[in-house]
Amino acid sequence: MSRQDTDAGTVLVEEAVRALDAVREHAPLVQAITNAVVTNFTANALLALGAAPAMVDIPQEAGVFARVASGLLVNLGTPGGEQRAAMVEAVTAAAESGTPWVLDPVAVGALPVRTPLALRLRDAGPAVVRGNASEVLALAEVGGGGRGVDATDDVETTAQVAADLARRTGAVVAVSGPVDLVTDGRRTARVHNGDVLLTRVTGGGCALGAVMAAFAGAGADRFLTTVAATVVYGVAAETAAAQAAGPGTFPAAFLDALGAVDASTVRARAVVR
Amino acid sequence: MSRQDTDAGTVLVEEAVRALDAVREHAPLVQAITNAVVTNFTANALLALGAAPAMVDIPQEAGVFARVASGLLVNLGTPGGEQRAAMVEAVTAAAESGTPWVLDPVAVGALPVRTPLALRLRDAGPAVVRGNASEVLALAEVGGGGRGVDATDDVETTAQVAADLARRTGAVVAVSGPVDLVTDGRRTARVHNGDVLLTRVTGGGCALGAVMAAFAGAGADRFLTTVAATVVYGVAAETAAAQAAGPGTFPAAFLDALGAVDASTVRARAVVR
Amino acid sequence: MSRQDTDAGTVLVEEAVRALDAVREHAPLVQAITNAVVTNFTANALLALGAAPAMVDIPQEAGVFARVASGLLVNLGTPGGEQRAAMVEAVTAAAESGTPWVLDPVAVGALPVRTPLALRLRDAGPAVVRGNASEVLALAEVGGGGRGVDATDDVETTAQVAADLARRTGAVVAVSGPVDLVTDGRRTARVHNGDVLLTRVTGGGCALGAVMAAFAGAGADRFLTTVAATVVYGVAAETAAAQAAGPGTFPAAFLDALGAVDASTVRARAVVR
Repeated sequence: MSRQDTDAGTVLVEEAVRALDAVREHAPLVQAITNAVVTNFTANALLALGAAPAMVDIPQEAGVFARVASGLLVNLGTPGGEQRAAMVEAVTAAAESGTPWVLDPVAVGALPVRTPLALRLRDAGPAVVRGNASEVLALAEVGGGGRGVDATDDVETTAQVAADLARRTGAVVAVSGPVDLVTDGRRTARVHNGDVLLTRVTGGGCALGAVMAAFAGAGADRFLTTVAATVVYGVAAETAAAQAAGPGTFPAAFLDALGAVDASTVRARAVVR
Repeated sequence: MSRQDTDAGTVLVEEAVRALDAVREHAPLVQAITNAVVTNFTANALLALGAAPAMVDIPQEAGVFARVASGLLVNLGTPGGEQRAAMVEAVTAAAESGTPWVLDPVAVGALPVRTPLALRLRDAGPAVVRGNASEVLALAEVGGGGRGVDATDDVETTAQVAADLARRTGAVVAVSGPVDLVTDGRRTARVHNGDVLLTRVTGGGCALGAVMAAFAGAGADRFLTTVAATVVYGVAAETAAAQAAGPGTFPAAFLDALGAVDASTVRARAVVR
Repeated sequence: MSRQDTDAGTVLVEEAVRALDAVREHAPLVQAITNAVVTNFTANALLALGAAPAMVDIPQEAGVFARVASGLLVNLGTPGGEQRAAMVEAVTAAAESGTPWVLDPVAVGALPVRTPLALRLRDAGPAVVRGNASEVLALAEVGGGGRGVDATDDVETTAQVAADLARRTGAVVAVSGPVDLVTDGRRTARVHNGDVLLTRVTGGGCALGAVMAAFAGAGADRFLTTVAATVVYGVAAETAAAQAAGPGTFPAAFLDALGAVDASTVRARAVVR
C-alpha cells in the first residue's frame, strides 16, 4: 500500500529513488560556502550520502572551484568579509559554467550585512532557494513597510509567497517546517518526512541545503531533485530519531542513516503530497 | 537527605532548579561570538538545554543583534580581526540595551592580541567573567612584574583574586577547576559537580560560558544564575560520564544529558557549598 | 607470531609503542593552524591521544605561540587571509626555535591561492609533509606542463616522487592511501593499518597531521615518530570501525579508541613493512 495519497506523490518518490541512486553513482563534487557552525556536520552529511564535499570559500579560489563543482551551496549563516567576496565570485562563475547552486539565506531580514547580500544573490540565478518560512518571506520582501507577515502565521500565505518567489527568480523554492514545501511556481510538493530532532541540533537545515546541491547535479529537473533531497533527508532523520537517545546522539545516528538510506527505505517511509 | 552541607547550599540548588525552569520556559536567544573550534558544540549545547543560539559575529551585525539577544557570550579563543571588531561592537550595544554578557578570556596572559583586548573587555561591564584559574589571574593582572602566581598554586589565592576582580569590575567571576568557584565579591559558592571528561574534550569550558549567558537572562541576580548554570552543567556532565565509553562518546552523551536534566536530577546530584 | 614480515617492521612497531608512551607522558602542546571544517575533530583527537591542542592561528600570536609549542600543524584546507599570514609567521618562528612542524597541503595543485603558498611552505623547512598521493605529487611539482601523473595511477611512481621530495626538502613525507607510505628518502615504511571509514568522514587525514605533530616532539628521529603516529592512528581506526554502525558513529568511536590505544593494542594490530 502506498503511503502517498496521489499518483503524483508516488511519481515523486520514485524520482527520489532514482536521484538517490544517481548521487551514489556519480559522487558529485559539492562546494559548500557555509557558516562556521555547521561546516563539519555539512561535510560529513555529504560524505555519508556518497557525495564529495569541498569547503572552498576564499576569494580567488571560490570561483575557480565553482566552475568544476557539480553543485554549490551558498549559506549566509556567518558571512565574514572574505566569505562574502567568495560567494559573489562563486555564483558568478557558477552562472557562467552552468553549475547549479543553492542559496540558504540564514537569518535574513533584519540583519544589515546579510540581507542586502541575500537579495543580490537571489537575483543572481540560484537553482534552489532553501529556508524556513521567515527567511523565505524576508527574501521575497514580503512584510516590508510594516505589513508584518508572521512566519508562524499562515502556511498558505507562505506557500503563495514561495510560488511567487519561484516564478520571479526561476529558482525552486524549498520551505522547511513541520511539513516541508517545495515549489517551482507551477508544481508544489509537500514532504511529510523528517523529525523534530532536526530542529534540536544546529545544522539540520543547513546540511539539507548542501544535500540539495548534491542532488541538483543528479537530474535536469530541479523541482524533482529538490523534492528528492528533501525526502531522502527526512526519511534518514526518521530512521535516526528511532535510534537516538536525545539531541546529542541524534547527529551521529542521522549520518549513519544518510549513509544507509536506500530505495526500500525511501519507498517504505516517504510521504509526499 | 540533602547533599549540601549548609542551608545556603540548599537555597542555591533550589535557585538552580528555578533558573533551569525559566530557561526552558523562555528559550532565551543567546548570541555567541566564540572560537572556531567550539561553535558547533556550543550551539548544540544551547539547543539541547532549550535555548536558541545565534552565532552573529561580524561587524555591523553583532551590535544590532546584541540589542535583541537575551544574553551574549564573548569568547576569545580564536580572535580574528573581524571577530575582534564584532566583540567590541556587541559589548557596546549590550551595555546600551542592558543585555547581560559573559566574557571568556581564553588563554589570556602571554598572547599579545587577545590580552589587551581581554583587559579592555573586562572594563566594559561584563555580567560574568568565566575562565580557569590561570586566565582569571591573568585578567586580574596578578602575577605581573615577575611575582609569578602559578595557576596550580593556591586555591585560596585564586578565590581571593576572583573576589577582588568581581568587586572591581562588578561582574560575577566563575573559576573552573576540579571544584568550580563562583563569586560576586560578597558571596562565594563552590560547586562540586562535573567530571574530568569535560577537560578531555574541546569546548567543555567554552560551552559553559554560553550556558551562563543563557541563564543570565533567567533571573536578576547574576550570582544565582551563574551558580545555577554551573550546577546544571556539572550535573549533566556526571550523568554523561556514566554513559560514555571515553572522550569520543562523551560529547553526545553530555548533550543528551543537558537535554534531559530536570529538577529531580539537579536535586539528587547537586553539591554546592 | 609477529604480523610484520620483516625484523625492520617489528622494530618500527616497538618504536611506535615507545613514542606513544612518550606522547602520553609529556602531553605535548600542539599548535594547529588548520581548516575550519576539522578544528573540533582535530582538537578532540589531540586531547583523546593525551596531547594539548591550541588553535592559535592569527597574526601576531601564531609566531609567539610557535616558539613554545612542542609541535605545529599547518593545514591549508581553508586558507583565509589572516590564516595565511599566521602560517608564514608561525613557520618562521618554528624554524628559529626548532619547533617541528607538519605541512598538510590540502587540495594543492589547481587552486591558485593555496598552491603557491604550499610551495613556499614546502621550502621553509617542514619536519613532515603529509598528504594523499595527488597532493604529494602536486607539491613535488610532478605532472606540471601537462604530463599528467594521475594520483590513482601508480603506487611506485608516488613512492619514488615522495622519496625524491623527502631528499630535496629534508622532510619526512607521508602519503595516505589504502596503504600509508612514510619515507625520509632513505628509509621507507608501509603501514597497512587504518580503515576505509577514515575516508568517509571529514578530517580523517587532517587530524592525522596533527597527531604527527604531537609525535614529532616525542623523539629525535622524525621518520620513526611519523611512522609511529601513522601506526597508532591506523590501529585506533580499526578498533573504532569494529564498534561503529556507520560514518556517523565512527568519529566518536575513533576518539574513544585513540584515548584507549596502548602498547598491547599496537603490538597486536600493527602491520608495518
